[in-house]
Amino acid sequence: MVFVLVAIAALAGVVVYIAPASGLADGEAAPIFGVTIPPGYRDWRLISVAHEEGNLDDLRAILGNDAAVEASRQGKLPFPDGTIIARLAWSYVPLEESSKAFGRLQSFVAGPPKNGVQFMLKDSRKYASTGGWGFAQFDDGKPANEAMHKTCFPCHEIAKTRDFVFNRYAR
Amino acid sequence: MVFVLVAIAALAGVVVYIAPASGLADGEAAPIFGVTIPPGYRDWRLISVAHEEGNLDDLRAILGNDAAVEASRQGKLPFPDGTIIARLAWSYVPLEESSKAFGRLQSFVAGPPKNGVQFMLKDSRKYASTGGWGFAQFDDGKPANEAMHKTCFPCHEIAKTRDFVFNRYAR
Repeated sequence: MVFVLVAIAALAGVVVYIAPASGLADGEAAPIFGVTIPPGYRDWRLISVAHEEGNLDDLRAILGNDAAVEASRQGKLPFPDGTIIARLAWSYVPLEESSKAFGRLQSFVAGPPKNGVQFMLKDSRKYASTGGWGFAQFDDGKPANEAMHKTCFPCHEIAKTRDFVFNRYAR
Repeated sequence: MVFVLVAIAALAGVVVYIAPASGLADGEAAPIFGVTIPPGYRDWRLISVAHEEGNLDDLRAILGNDAAVEASRQGKLPFPDGTIIARLAWSYVPLEESSKAFGRLQSFVAGPPKNGVQFMLKDSRKYASTGGWGFAQFDDGKPANEAMHKTCFPCHEIAKTRDFVFNRYAR
């Protein structure tokens, strides 16, 4: 059915992206919450961007599946079951051409991946004890350890009034 | 045809985004290059993220239409005709919850829009005298003035060896 749609769409001259309804793939599951890497997440739409100073020292993008983007855009809380939010991060590196042109550090861009990729998956029944969210971090595609996963919810609890999500939709 | 596809796709349980093949909308055209705001650009996929220090002081996202994303991902230069790259930017604001938790400034997130939205559109014949690119900046949906548009190409010329595009695809 999916392939038929793509073929029809190609003939119609439109561009079609197709994502599986489940949003979940095979692959090693992260400890505690059992979350796996959702396929195609790098192609998800942008919710917001961020920069962490200090030890983290990275540039970030918050992407979301359709449920996440629609809810964020509408500012609708709590997020519906099936929401998945992805936090990507990269090294914070000066853009060489810009430094030369300005004669000082001016532009910083995303370098190699850093601080892993994190996901929040909403399932209000399965993850009832952690605000309805399952958390996961993957470093080079491998789940981080259990101790690391124990730190997710206590930190996100700070944003309880926003359904435990730090970032707002960037308009 | 488009609506039929969406209906079929909904029944099939898949998610479908549809973008017009032209990528260009009505709306006031920017001076010199005549570029208009491409419809749906906020939903385009992410190429990279950046932070400008100094007077610009913003957080940025570089999004691209399909041609832009595919070429960036493959590191394929020059970009094909029809490529459109969008540069969004927002105020660089501290995340309040994070500052409280850390007892110092730690996380910076996207605040209100800042420094306009910029586009680069590839048409190697139409824009032959500016490396094949048309440039545009819009502030609150209105094109910036001609003087501003005269600054685009001289600045992007620094990145001539990368087809005048500063950002690389963030993996």
